[in-house]
Amino acid sequence: MTMPARLPVITTYRWVPPFARGLVRELRARWAFEEVGIAYRVELIDHPYAKSEAHRRFQPFGQIPTYSDGAVEIFESGAIALHIARQGSGLLPEDPAAQARAVQWLIAALNSIEPFVMDLAVVDVFEAGEDWSRARRPTVERKLRERLQDLSAALGGREFLDDAFSVGDLMMVSVLRGVDRTDILADYPNLADYRARCEARPAFRKALADHLAPYVDADAPSAVA
Amino acid sequence: MTMPARLPVITTYRWVPPFARGLVRELRARWAFEEVGIAYRVELIDHPYAKSEAHRRFQPFGQIPTYSDGAVEIFESGAIALHIARQGSGLLPEDPAAQARAVQWLIAALNSIEPFVMDLAVVDVFEAGEDWSRARRPTVERKLRERLQDLSAALGGREFLDDAFSVGDLMMVSVLRGVDRTDILADYPNLADYRARCEARPAFRKALADHLAPYVDADAPSAVA
Repeated sequence: MTMPARLPVITTYRWVPPFARGLVRELRARWAFEEVGIAYRVELIDHPYAKSEAHRRFQPFGQIPTYSDGAVEIFESGAIALHIARQGSGLLPEDPAAQARAVQWLIAALNSIEPFVMDLAVVDVFEAGEDWSRARRPTVERKLRERLQDLSAALGGREFLDDAFSVGDLMMVSVLRGVDRTDILADYPNLADYRARCEARPAFRKALADHLAPYVDADAPSAVA
Repeated sequence: MTMPARLPVITTYRWVPPFARGLVRELRARWAFEEVGIAYRVELIDHPYAKSEAHRRFQPFGQIPTYSDGAVEIFESGAIALHIARQGSGLLPEDPAAQARAVQWLIAALNSIEPFVMDLAVVDVFEAGEDWSRARRPTVERKLRERLQDLSAALGGREFLDDAFSVGDLMMVSVLRGVDRTDILADYPNLADYRARCEARPAFRKALADHLAPYVDADAPSAVA
């Protein structure tokens, strides 16, 4: 652990359309900061700037979030959440075997669940107008449900994916939120309960409120003379 | 770091079809073991066993690889490669900022590149017979190419994604191998060179040979009387 040179700064979009609110990936970093109790600053950027050379020096894919504390500069919400987890306590167990499992669940969220969640979002949102989306949807939903069924079986009756809440749960719940425009999660009651349990944490509620605040302000009608 | 209770064991499939050879994800773990010089053992399992309750206790999605050393038991090739990297030297820089960047590239490979590589594999291989696959292919290839273009720009003229070869390069090259049935990578010469450079490492060559060996044996004609 190195001491950051200054307050960590993360970037996110100044404005996103309503369907994306609560899903933008800087929320994952905010949640991690709140869980470990590290103060941070947010830099709101516009979409054109995200695609600029200046921003791509920190995020080659022209996306958000990025993390910078003057010593460490990284992108990828998974890497950022893991880095924040390592700076404080509460998100990574000290026992090395349990710590390896927390990292495993974080990566499972990003590589074994999120691609299937995103695939359904492509069908329902990003390519909703394409003929092929209607034809593919049953297959895409079936594959996602297979993963959710497996995850539900792995969770069983436990409170969290492992013995205690970790950065793995933080990432898994962040990913599960991506099916919100559907009723799918309700078919896996233990996953729905697990999600609600994690979202009831004060750290999540604070992070979500702070995440939503700029969009509320941005949408407020301007003062009219 | 805890001392493993015994030689680490990873699981992989006893047999896979020819198109999957060289792409099965236990190769990532083999490569990591070879880079850090840790001896390991491989347990070959059959596909039905992978889907059994017994195996799902270690891998909820009924897949491979799993890693077990008697102290740590994990799944997800990304988590396994990172865990192996932490057990030895050569895959994770000691400088904390550079270490965070290596983890960032590992996660970028798994979350920002692999979903697009897999999407093209779905179109070309797993759902090749579906009408929608032909219609979708140009869109899917375009999105993959956007990511490869960004990655190519990020790599620039450098030898590796950061100053020295790391577990981030190991994972990125493992993911890039997934477009091998196409000529796409040749359109990004610095990525093609980067991939060749990493694959020329003795650790990769040993890992690949060991990965392929069981399949050669499995396909050998039985002795005929």
